[in-house]
Amino acid sequence: MTVIGNDAALRDAADPLAHLRDRFHPTPGDAVYLNGGSLGRLPTATAGIVDHVVRAEWGDGLAGARTTWFDMCERMGDRVAEVALGAHPGEVVVGDCTSVNLYKLAAAVLDADPGRRAIVTDDDNFPTDQYVLAGVAAERGGTLRRLHTDPDRGLDLDLLREAVDDDVALVSLSLVSCRSGALFDIAEVQEIAHAAGALVLWDLSHAAGAVPVDLAANGADLAVGSTYKHLFAGPGAPAFLYVRRDLHTVLAQPIHGWYGHREQLAMRGDYEADPTIRRFLTGSPPILSAVAIEAGLAVIAEAGLEALRAKSVALTGYLQELLEPTGLRLASPVDPARRGAHVTYGHPRSAQLVPLLAENGVFVDYSVPDRLRLTPAPLSTRFADVATAAERIRGVLERSGL
Amino acid sequence: MTVIGNDAALRDAADPLAHLRDRFHPTPGDAVYLNGGSLGRLPTATAGIVDHVVRAEWGDGLAGARTTWFDMCERMGDRVAEVALGAHPGEVVVGDCTSVNLYKLAAAVLDADPGRRAIVTDDDNFPTDQYVLAGVAAERGGTLRRLHTDPDRGLDLDLLREAVDDDVALVSLSLVSCRSGALFDIAEVQEIAHAAGALVLWDLSHAAGAVPVDLAANGADLAVGSTYKHLFAGPGAPAFLYVRRDLHTVLAQPIHGWYGHREQLAMRGDYEADPTIRRFLTGSPPILSAVAIEAGLAVIAEAGLEALRAKSVALTGYLQELLEPTGLRLASPVDPARRGAHVTYGHPRSAQLVPLLAENGVFVDYSVPDRLRLTPAPLSTRFADVATAAERIRGVLERSGL
Repeated sequence: MTVIGNDAALRDAADPLAHLRDRFHPTPGDAVYLNGGSLGRLPTATAGIVDHVVRAEWGDGLAGARTTWFDMCERMGDRVAEVALGAHPGEVVVGDCTSVNLYKLAAAVLDADPGRRAIVTDDDNFPTDQYVLAGVAAERGGTLRRLHTDPDRGLDLDLLREAVDDDVALVSLSLVSCRSGALFDIAEVQEIAHAAGALVLWDLSHAAGAVPVDLAANGADLAVGSTYKHLFAGPGAPAFLYVRRDLHTVLAQPIHGWYGHREQLAMRGDYEADPTIRRFLTGSPPILSAVAIEAGLAVIAEAGLEALRAKSVALTGYLQELLEPTGLRLASPVDPARRGAHVTYGHPRSAQLVPLLAENGVFVDYSVPDRLRLTPAPLSTRFADVATAAERIRGVLERSGL
Repeated sequence: MTVIGNDAALRDAADPLAHLRDRFHPTPGDAVYLNGGSLGRLPTATAGIVDHVVRAEWGDGLAGARTTWFDMCERMGDRVAEVALGAHPGEVVVGDCTSVNLYKLAAAVLDADPGRRAIVTDDDNFPTDQYVLAGVAAERGGTLRRLHTDPDRGLDLDLLREAVDDDVALVSLSLVSCRSGALFDIAEVQEIAHAAGALVLWDLSHAAGAVPVDLAANGADLAVGSTYKHLFAGPGAPAFLYVRRDLHTVLAQPIHGWYGHREQLAMRGDYEADPTIRRFLTGSPPILSAVAIEAGLAVIAEAGLEALRAKSVALTGYLQELLEPTGLRLASPVDPARRGAHVTYGHPRSAQLVPLLAENGVFVDYSVPDRLRLTPAPLSTRFADVATAAERIRGVLERSGL
């Protein structure tokens, strides 16, 4: 065993979460998967949960199953709230995709106060967030202010302070940057926005399940996020949407449907928005994809977010240490505490490097124009995996001459 | 064997589609399921297809699977177009729920012509359609005109003729009424709308897979619809959306996202809508629910829609004949050719009758205020099932005194 291999083995032996790796489908062959920021690994319990819904509930259930499914959005929402978001029961629902949820909430905020027409975001926010927000703003005679962000280090909050004036209805940012991994301080951003009378809408896609979020403790206004990255819910699983309780009756989203109606099954009359979080729903959620949210949440709950975060910081710190000699340029905040669960590097030939690494058993994500995003998901990744990945990356860089 | 039992057995023996019933999960016990209008039965192939995506593609796939999934919306859309809608390749996508798709298309139509502000629908349209359309119209300074419809027989087209003037941008109707089952003549409705310069947006939720639709042959403008009724795609499976090709660049929907961007993976710059049907997409589709669309389509394709429709007309006609002596009031068009795949009855105590029937092994749907909707899905229902159901319904009515 090499010195590094021995070091990694010691770290794994001391890891209080090591046993939870068995709760995930084994990575095939000797592959190392560092792409949990795109799609989290498959929990072993998921196949059984989905198959039960298909055969027992759908196939054998006849009348009964449908009743069970009618509250799927709130049931799964409450579970996400409790395990990953630190939100109160009744403040989170699951349904639709992240972009549709973002549209609903941004539109609701602009519609609530005709005196404020601007939305503020940053130009390193996930592009689809920028598209949605620009579209919502334009449609409502408003504007999207896109602050320039250091793509490696995150947004300078002084720029945010300058940008948020009394025409701003909403500040919408990704708590963890999809590219650099830069992590905002929730309270600091909210203080700036709230001081100017604006609300904050967080995209938690790269944060939920990756860092403790504590929406209730932080008095967060609004949030949306993906369930298929750090919540392990599977490809395209429906997204979550959070609205603080006192905002439920202040905000109304524009895509009306029976799931948001005060009497879902009354099937008559005009639309009357439910007074609860349900008003942010529209139509039927995709049940097979929605039930798949359960299994990953159970593993996260067992680990606890604080322990998970501690391992994540240790894993990305270790990866950073091992990649130091390669000369890859760090394109993330240097301090692991200032980023989410991924670490990003810049390399001019990243687009070629990513498939070459995959051929050599290391799966990472490519980000335009020249980034490699490495996400060692703490529940499904060992320190030994990180050591193996670093060694293979060094080898590929040397042999390929890239 | 009773006379009726013998008659049903003869009909089943002569049924060219009888063998396809084995392609569905057996109905538990001796239950008769006549609720395919709420949720189609489980195709036997579905569990394997979903499990393969979970374990092999998600669990073992690592990098490769995601690429496969990126065109899921168009791939499934093309298949729905071919098998169930008679639409051209590249005119249908699958993704989001029916209500969100309806919102997108109705908004796109109102946004395309600021000179027309009205939408016309009927007051027996599925309530969620009425909610969505009223919301879209109000948000855009328009109005929804709701025509009064005979809840048993369908809309009088003279009312439509009167209502469609040059302020009408859109006529939106359900081709098959969710309640009465009344079936519109596509060409007739379109002629009225087009003559006044309005487009037609069909909700095909109770039509797709139940009746031949032939969107291309009929020159249809726009359509949306559910996949989980007569297409057997499972609970909450994503809906389809159809836009005739020449309208792709005329219409732009308001919920922008990376799936609708000209360069989905470019991840930079402003939103630029794709010139194809993709522009009507927004974000990631729920893959486990989306792949479940395949299996039912394969059975429908094998049957052929014309044969399926012929059996459906025979089944509902037979059911009607057998229920005649019960005194239940027919609340559907009398002629099977003038309705979709379900037949509806009125009974003042329907709300109590539906659970009582379920206890007696007949699963039907309740519709407010006093309707029983019976859907003998032609691919998964035998004439013998219809005979059994009718006998049990008669028995329950007699014994319960309802």
